[in-house]
Amino acid sequence: MDPKQFREAAQSAIDEIARYYETVADRRVLPSVAPGYLQALLPDAAPDEGEEWNKIQADIDRVIMPGLTHWQSPKFMAFFPCNSSFPAMLGDMYSGAFNAAAFNWICSPAVTELETIMMDWVAKMLNLPDCFLSKGEGGGIIQGTASEVVVTSVVAARERIIRRRLADMPEGEEKMDKASEMRGKLVALGSEHAHSSTQKAALIAGTRFRSVPAPREDGFRVTASALRQTIESLKAKGLEPFYFTITLGTTATCAVDDLEGIAELTKDYPDLWIHVDAAYAGSALVCPEYQHHCKPFAHFDSFNFNLHKWLLVNFDCSAFFIRKRRDLTDTYTLTPSYLRNEFTDKGLVTDYRDWQIPLGRRFRSLKVWFVLRSYGINGLRAFIRNHVQLGEYFHSLIASRPDLFTVVSGPAFGLTTFHVNPRRPGASRSESPSANGASSSATTTADKPNPQHEAYLNDFTADANAHWQADANQLTKEVYEHVNSQGEFFLTSTVVGGVYVIRVVSATPTAEEKYLKKVFESLVEAAAEKVAKGGKGKGD
Amino acid sequence: MDPKQFREAAQSAIDEIARYYETVADRRVLPSVAPGYLQALLPDAAPDEGEEWNKIQADIDRVIMPGLTHWQSPKFMAFFPCNSSFPAMLGDMYSGAFNAAAFNWICSPAVTELETIMMDWVAKMLNLPDCFLSKGEGGGIIQGTASEVVVTSVVAARERIIRRRLADMPEGEEKMDKASEMRGKLVALGSEHAHSSTQKAALIAGTRFRSVPAPREDGFRVTASALRQTIESLKAKGLEPFYFTITLGTTATCAVDDLEGIAELTKDYPDLWIHVDAAYAGSALVCPEYQHHCKPFAHFDSFNFNLHKWLLVNFDCSAFFIRKRRDLTDTYTLTPSYLRNEFTDKGLVTDYRDWQIPLGRRFRSLKVWFVLRSYGINGLRAFIRNHVQLGEYFHSLIASRPDLFTVVSGPAFGLTTFHVNPRRPGASRSESPSANGASSSATTTADKPNPQHEAYLNDFTADANAHWQADANQLTKEVYEHVNSQGEFFLTSTVVGGVYVIRVVSATPTAEEKYLKKVFESLVEAAAEKVAKGGKGKGD
Repeated sequence: MDPKQFREAAQSAIDEIARYYETVADRRVLPSVAPGYLQALLPDAAPDEGEEWNKIQADIDRVIMPGLTHWQSPKFMAFFPCNSSFPAMLGDMYSGAFNAAAFNWICSPAVTELETIMMDWVAKMLNLPDCFLSKGEGGGIIQGTASEVVVTSVVAARERIIRRRLADMPEGEEKMDKASEMRGKLVALGSEHAHSSTQKAALIAGTRFRSVPAPREDGFRVTASALRQTIESLKAKGLEPFYFTITLGTTATCAVDDLEGIAELTKDYPDLWIHVDAAYAGSALVCPEYQHHCKPFAHFDSFNFNLHKWLLVNFDCSAFFIRKRRDLTDTYTLTPSYLRNEFTDKGLVTDYRDWQIPLGRRFRSLKVWFVLRSYGINGLRAFIRNHVQLGEYFHSLIASRPDLFTVVSGPAFGLTTFHVNPRRPGASRSESPSANGASSSATTTADKPNPQHEAYLNDFTADANAHWQADANQLTKEVYEHVNSQGEFFLTSTVVGGVYVIRVVSATPTAEEKYLKKVFESLVEAAAEKVAKGGKGKGD
Repeated sequence: MDPKQFREAAQSAIDEIARYYETVADRRVLPSVAPGYLQALLPDAAPDEGEEWNKIQADIDRVIMPGLTHWQSPKFMAFFPCNSSFPAMLGDMYSGAFNAAAFNWICSPAVTELETIMMDWVAKMLNLPDCFLSKGEGGGIIQGTASEVVVTSVVAARERIIRRRLADMPEGEEKMDKASEMRGKLVALGSEHAHSSTQKAALIAGTRFRSVPAPREDGFRVTASALRQTIESLKAKGLEPFYFTITLGTTATCAVDDLEGIAELTKDYPDLWIHVDAAYAGSALVCPEYQHHCKPFAHFDSFNFNLHKWLLVNFDCSAFFIRKRRDLTDTYTLTPSYLRNEFTDKGLVTDYRDWQIPLGRRFRSLKVWFVLRSYGINGLRAFIRNHVQLGEYFHSLIASRPDLFTVVSGPAFGLTTFHVNPRRPGASRSESPSANGASSSATTTADKPNPQHEAYLNDFTADANAHWQADANQLTKEVYEHVNSQGEFFLTSTVVGGVYVIRVVSATPTAEEKYLKKVFESLVEAAAEKVAKGGKGKGD
């Protein structure tokens, strides 16, 4: 394919892509294919001779489209969003054009330098403490995902504490043995509701992992006292907590751990590396009303959020800020002879390969640059606030039917979690909540707790509560699976504090109230039907 | 930016990109900017309001272009190539459009299924043993880079040997302690000329690392006996070699370790995980004349090559094949409640997140599909063979001036390494090689060894040899830096067996003999000048 053919092919591709975005809201979000669908539609080997682009392009619609889950649909409300925007797509086009494995400054100065500047722009936009700007001892780097950032941090933290503890030992076999022994006692910590990435990172780094309790009565947050208690109990066993992922917006409920309280605690544990995982909710920090969260960060070692979740930058783009660059480079710098060059040798430049695990890296800062300039800071604030408001809207809908639903958390950063209420035992069918909310047994309003629920809890023992919860879990799971099986919307669920909840967060660029209203109606219909059927979630 | 604006902006971008490819050969390969150039050209913060696309696009040429190293230029002959092609760029455009964090099958069935099928196409195209096809116990996955693949393998290997050795111990504290103790004794191995990624992976995994000698007399290859010797000497010290990266095409010289001999050796070390790193040269395996290399792979655990180096797929795209999927999933599977779904639970699908370190992943198989179909297997073979021939051409040029140059390795997979010859001590200036090769002291032909060099070596002691080599190293370094400083071509250098060499490999899609001829002329001019000046590389 020469440049002329490329122009034609690309124009056709652009047209198809633009049409996709114009019509994605009309599609079912979830595909209806069964596992293995694609094998039947494709040859089992590559062709011997090249094919025309027209023929290849036609297959996108024929075989790929039916197998897509449409993350860019306004009806996608699962996990967290994975934003896409046109300026970011343009950025990736240029990144592909300027294709390089830019692991060193000399491999393409612009790739390194634009990244440093973009990370400074982002740090200022989020009002992060100055220590994370590149002019001091810290700085920012774009990595692929929050998971990779956590691995990068855990390994760096592991090596940092070993370096510190064994600083006075001479190099040699004995030191290596001591280091190995130490590694076996190191424990990485994360909230019980934190993303599984910390546990996976501990596995990769060959350390232990322990979760810190974050019960419902603490709002599913890690408090300073819970963290302290966990640390002390581990130390009492001869183990060494060396790392803690503090979460700003947990996957389950968007809870925010006690940032200020834990910042205070760092005085007592100077070797504990604290990493702020704000993978999703970090985007909200573009708005001043959330920036109070950032003040304690000056006490922590690293901070990360994914611009590719909720800030209009296409996957992948995870911004990783470090308070002291040396905490990374002291671990990751290896300069074999074929990577040496005068710029590296003179220490004049940033070689991002020494801040990360992989060697090569893409020109990801281009899409950040394009997005920040296309929307402007005010445009990004409006984007975030719109979704926060949509989250409040959805919450109000759920709260308006306390006969059917109990809110478990939120709205927080657009996310609400809730479960379905089983019928109260002994209540007659006529007392079951109906789809339109009419019920003779109780009057409810959107703002008051559910008297049925409260009365129910008061009347029974803890056993009955557990029984009711089990029923609620089963019922909620059925309602959730029913709504997803219709394929119109995509929701996800999770279990927090033993409670099975449905999660709803709607934060794609084309999200609107009308879609939330519609998914609410589907949930009401499914809930009312299943409660009426058996109420205990076990069917009749 | 709405779809209509996107159509216009994208058309303009496509045009600029096509023009870039039409004219890249006219550009200097290396930029002339100094470190920090970009800061002066950009504002120090993001704008408050959004800007028009025209204004943003204009800055690409103004501030980015001057800071690019042009990897797609036919004058880029450094490191290994980082191929780019139009079909791959189209693939990445659609990948961006269908933006998703496709960590599970349900996140977009097409993303998982096309990847499985593409890896089968690639395995068949390379004639890999059947064990690497998805229909059996093995399979393939696309990861970002060879470095990440090595980390993935080293950690999996570490956990595999620990699982095997401690299979009979009950779970608990004692087992964890024993596992930690074991980890401290584990040693990962790689050729002394292998890529630094194995050493970095060992660091990340918290194991030791030892390099296996691969001296010049063995052609810079690891032989079975050298590997066996290293393993046995480590075991004698109570250490446990658990992993070995065998290289097909080392970074330094494209040497190929003794694949067959080491395959034989696996019988004696059943717990040793052997990973084939063919990051660059693996692409040559599309040609049947190289496929004899693949036969021994059935004895190894994993195989990897980067389609983004030398197979026309834009960065990033590293194909990782595993002989037994369970060797990955037994280590990496963690399924927290928010990732559970019926397809995963029933074991019906591949969830690639359990074969890798990160969670989210892009739709990278699209560009593989487009490239394989656009070129066809025969087109890819022609592509490889053309570069192999260019490598032979350049080698013949270097070999035609044995007065100036000594070939150290190659041509191998397009790569030749060589050093510059210092003037023989005692030879008068009139006997120095001149740029046109005329010399009164010796007659030389392209195919015979350099009599001057031979005589020189025979006449002196080992001390003098070392002295000569030090001179050669210094001289070669000066010639190398001189050519690069001109910015017209980009070469790299390395040190093998104490010898400083210049590496030349020309494998971009637009590579041609005329560019190799020109860089050869630059090398001759620089070498003749510097040898004439002092001959010992120290100047006069």
